[in-house]
Amino acid sequence: MHIGFIGLGQMGSAIAANLVKTGHDVKVWNRSPEKAAPLVAAGATLAASPADAASGEVVLTMLADDMAVEAVTFGEDGILAAPNKPIHVSLSTISFALAEKLTAAHAEASGSFVAAPVFGRPAAAAAAKLFVVAAGPAQALAACTPLFEAIGQKTFPLGHTPSAATIVKLSGNFLILSVIESLAEAMTLAEKHGVEKAALLEILTGTLFGAPIYQVYGKILVDQSFRPAGFAAPLGLKDMNLVAAAATDARVPMPVLSLLRDRLLATIAREGDDIDWSGIARTVADNAGPAS
Amino acid sequence: MHIGFIGLGQMGSAIAANLVKTGHDVKVWNRSPEKAAPLVAAGATLAASPADAASGEVVLTMLADDMAVEAVTFGEDGILAAPNKPIHVSLSTISFALAEKLTAAHAEASGSFVAAPVFGRPAAAAAAKLFVVAAGPAQALAACTPLFEAIGQKTFPLGHTPSAATIVKLSGNFLILSVIESLAEAMTLAEKHGVEKAALLEILTGTLFGAPIYQVYGKILVDQSFRPAGFAAPLGLKDMNLVAAAATDARVPMPVLSLLRDRLLATIAREGDDIDWSGIARTVADNAGPAS
Amino acid sequence: MHIGFIGLGQMGSAIAANLVKTGHDVKVWNRSPEKAAPLVAAGATLAASPADAASGEVVLTMLADDMAVEAVTFGEDGILAAPNKPIHVSLSTISFALAEKLTAAHAEASGSFVAAPVFGRPAAAAAAKLFVVAAGPAQALAACTPLFEAIGQKTFPLGHTPSAATIVKLSGNFLILSVIESLAEAMTLAEKHGVEKAALLEILTGTLFGAPIYQVYGKILVDQSFRPAGFAAPLGLKDMNLVAAAATDARVPMPVLSLLRDRLLATIAREGDDIDWSGIARTVADNAGPAS
Amino acid sequence: MHIGFIGLGQMGSAIAANLVKTGHDVKVWNRSPEKAAPLVAAGATLAASPADAASGEVVLTMLADDMAVEAVTFGEDGILAAPNKPIHVSLSTISFALAEKLTAAHAEASGSFVAAPVFGRPAAAAAAKLFVVAAGPAQALAACTPLFEAIGQKTFPLGHTPSAATIVKLSGNFLILSVIESLAEAMTLAEKHGVEKAALLEILTGTLFGAPIYQVYGKILVDQSFRPAGFAAPLGLKDMNLVAAAATDARVPMPVLSLLRDRLLATIAREGDDIDWSGIARTVADNAGPAS
Repeated sequence: MHIGFIGLGQMGSAIAANLVKTGHDVKVWNRSPEKAAPLVAAGATLAASPADAASGEVVLTMLADDMAVEAVTFGEDGILAAPNKPIHVSLSTISFALAEKLTAAHAEASGSFVAAPVFGRPAAAAAAKLFVVAAGPAQALAACTPLFEAIGQKTFPLGHTPSAATIVKLSGNFLILSVIESLAEAMTLAEKHGVEKAALLEILTGTLFGAPIYQVYGKILVDQSFRPAGFAAPLGLKDMNLVAAAATDARVPMPVLSLLRDRLLATIAREGDDIDWSGIARTVADNAGPAS
Repeated sequence: MHIGFIGLGQMGSAIAANLVKTGHDVKVWNRSPEKAAPLVAAGATLAASPADAASGEVVLTMLADDMAVEAVTFGEDGILAAPNKPIHVSLSTISFALAEKLTAAHAEASGSFVAAPVFGRPAAAAAAKLFVVAAGPAQALAACTPLFEAIGQKTFPLGHTPSAATIVKLSGNFLILSVIESLAEAMTLAEKHGVEKAALLEILTGTLFGAPIYQVYGKILVDQSFRPAGFAAPLGLKDMNLVAAAATDARVPMPVLSLLRDRLLATIAREGDDIDWSGIARTVADNAGPAS
Repeated sequence: MHIGFIGLGQMGSAIAANLVKTGHDVKVWNRSPEKAAPLVAAGATLAASPADAASGEVVLTMLADDMAVEAVTFGEDGILAAPNKPIHVSLSTISFALAEKLTAAHAEASGSFVAAPVFGRPAAAAAAKLFVVAAGPAQALAACTPLFEAIGQKTFPLGHTPSAATIVKLSGNFLILSVIESLAEAMTLAEKHGVEKAALLEILTGTLFGAPIYQVYGKILVDQSFRPAGFAAPLGLKDMNLVAAAATDARVPMPVLSLLRDRLLATIAREGDDIDWSGIARTVADNAGPAS
Repeated sequence: MHIGFIGLGQMGSAIAANLVKTGHDVKVWNRSPEKAAPLVAAGATLAASPADAASGEVVLTMLADDMAVEAVTFGEDGILAAPNKPIHVSLSTISFALAEKLTAAHAEASGSFVAAPVFGRPAAAAAAKLFVVAAGPAQALAACTPLFEAIGQKTFPLGHTPSAATIVKLSGNFLILSVIESLAEAMTLAEKHGVEKAALLEILTGTLFGAPIYQVYGKILVDQSFRPAGFAAPLGLKDMNLVAAAATDARVPMPVLSLLRDRLLATIAREGDDIDWSGIARTVADNAGPAS
């Protein structure tokens, strides 16, 4: 398939590489073009602009925030300026409001928009083991199926309203961070009472909590491996702010979410921007005093 | 083995039945003796007192709260009054402080104490699928192994300090309720944005959250099957108060725990004492206004 | 003085009336012009546009939100389009970011900007008993002094950076709502234990809490007079969101603020948009179950 | 009047001194008798036991916690052992449950119990400027009036149920700490945006927040004078736990209270036991990162 890929950060580069590897004809674009070099070396083409990247059947975006997605879509030489009306697939986490705006804009331009946010950290992206939650027009979803298969281990189709996929992704990220927070609280309690974090984790994952999320983040918490960040705290904060915007819109009080946002603020203020979002565990522990 | 079993509530009756079924010689005791009838019909003996129930090698207790455990242990004709110095195994969730008190009291009386709290709801107890977290003197743990095998699917030995098992159990219950709360918040958000709770749950458990705790409680939340209670909200509140006592002791701030206690208080105040602790999900939803 | 006044809601009309009464020559403008009628009857002139209202020495704005202030300032025939470079005084609560944007825009246009948010509910505005917190260029502040004296009981000059006044106003509103929340929690506790709300309030205001804020809102809580709203809950939520934006910017975790936002969301969801922000007290009470 | 005074800590000594100064005949008792020396030098008599201290018409207690009050009341040679059935006045903050227990015990012993908790820090106690909230049998209250006048600036009679005074005192302490927390959050926000804490405080107390509580604690927060403690954080935690017990009893969720307890836990864990309870402001600031 002739496709485009915009956004070559840690996640985007890994995903795009899998698309190239699967044999697709991929035009890549990134604001800082030097990041495209390894992909071009692997067989991708360098696009001259987002519009150029959008000259195939499908263009995928994997960008840091709403502003970046808006820039490559609505900006000069943006996706909407491509004459061929491609399917625009947004893999990154965007706001509920932007999902609705993109749906409307592409429909008006006779193109189509698919929200297909992914679950997984950089290692899962590299291993093509992401989970894809996809919503959009049936025909567009069908057309994208081989792409999703190239980058993930499973795709969850969620109907024809793109913003539904956005809500699921935001909910998922909220739930991940809430697991980290509560696990950190429990581990701090256990440790202060003489039970090692690793021992607690082993029992949890061996009983009722045997899910990847407890295994992956539990190990990070036990090892305190918060740097380098797989998903930096400021990105986590951005996502939690998107959840909060959707919650405010719908008048849903989410006190755990509120707590997580304050926790991220504290963690960023105390530790800096380069810590992983799971670094909130350090703030949890610090608030229980010096390690004994 | 000659053993005793004290406390024949919903959980205790199910567990004791499995011990009888496995061929152990079980003397049962309950404050309201009529609850013993089905077990006696199945082959158990009715004990005349807690001390009588403690006349074998091991006596297990499965009781509602610290006060009940203290009564059958330290009271007149209590476990400590039994001349044979049995191993006392506490299967129910008790406070950190009581675990330490029982350890000391049994040691002084030349007996031994094992904390072996279990994870699982009544259905798991009936199916002998509990998880047992056991800590106490090595010899006592070894002696109890066949009993744990008769009632659970897996035993996690946790060293020789009984209170360690108590902390793990309390941490586990805290984590369970935190899953319920965050899942309820996410489901409420999703539903208000047009995504069905069941659809969200399917994606969660199909991706990063594929653990029994999400499957079991997720289904309860989707079905809103909060009555009859498998674990009533006031018992949940009692447990969360035990976690809070251990946290206060060790100077560990646990804001998610604080939130859960307030949520349980609200749920009990609004819904009554007979709702399952997962009924906090109803309070979460009610605070987002009338269902649309 | 020749001045203009833009924004004739409940607060703006009362303030503008005092300016007319003091003898100033006031040109008024409102998006829905019919609201200007009583003021015109009292001696004001109807302006044709925001720019027209800004044709005197000073133009004051008292508007619902940032968007409204941006519209009358930067829009077609907006304040910046007035040729005479008036002093723009913003009396309403705006965001920290907008305060900085307006400061820069007026400076660039050779005009000047003063942030002069006011404390007080409609009754205080009508009685010219507002408190004014004013920051901006010294000369501009001096020029506005007679205006502030006409509308308030006291002016607090806060230096030459307008956004400082904004932060103080946002902090003040946050503190007001935090008083309401904690007072509501205490009153609910007292009432459930047989102590009347009014008795508690009398002791509080007669001892350490003898400030207007406890007297005014305490009475509202005792009387449960949440409608009609003096300051509607959605406006309160808007303000708390502005505080949160400033806090997020500066990486300041504010857990009481987070709690207040969730409380407002719940109150709006359950009670509707027309309840006073102090109506969070009803949600506090509802979460403690039916009144006994 | 012949009276007794039990408990000569920082507060008790100051109060007892005022009773001596007013001409009452005061028998003092303290667990560590050396603390009585200055009072004896000033004219008090040293009692041989709590019962001896209770040999006059009234015996007042000012003690650290419930346990201490129970010890001097129910213990050997305790107040209840005094043959003359004095009026027992509890000036310190006790639990709701203990207030009810003391009411019943004294009634049964044909004595009477008055709960008369006081508001004020050591400086106010020394200056006889406390506020007294008193509840108990009418005759007993009348008899105590001159004593209350000797130690405080105003007495608030609250009817004949002692526990009502307890609830008011607990509510008041909760409200004080909630003022400290929210003021600390606001000051941290202001400071990070370039507004000095003192400037914010001046405006607050000059407008809607002109109450002693904002003046006294505002100054402590501006000066960061958290040591030596006027009211140590662990005592604050003890009081907040009493509020929580009363709230749990009555099924009243109090999320601000929950937050305050976690804040005190963090502050004690990080700063030690000797910091004033207003030291929670330091934890608030620390969670916003290093001072800039």
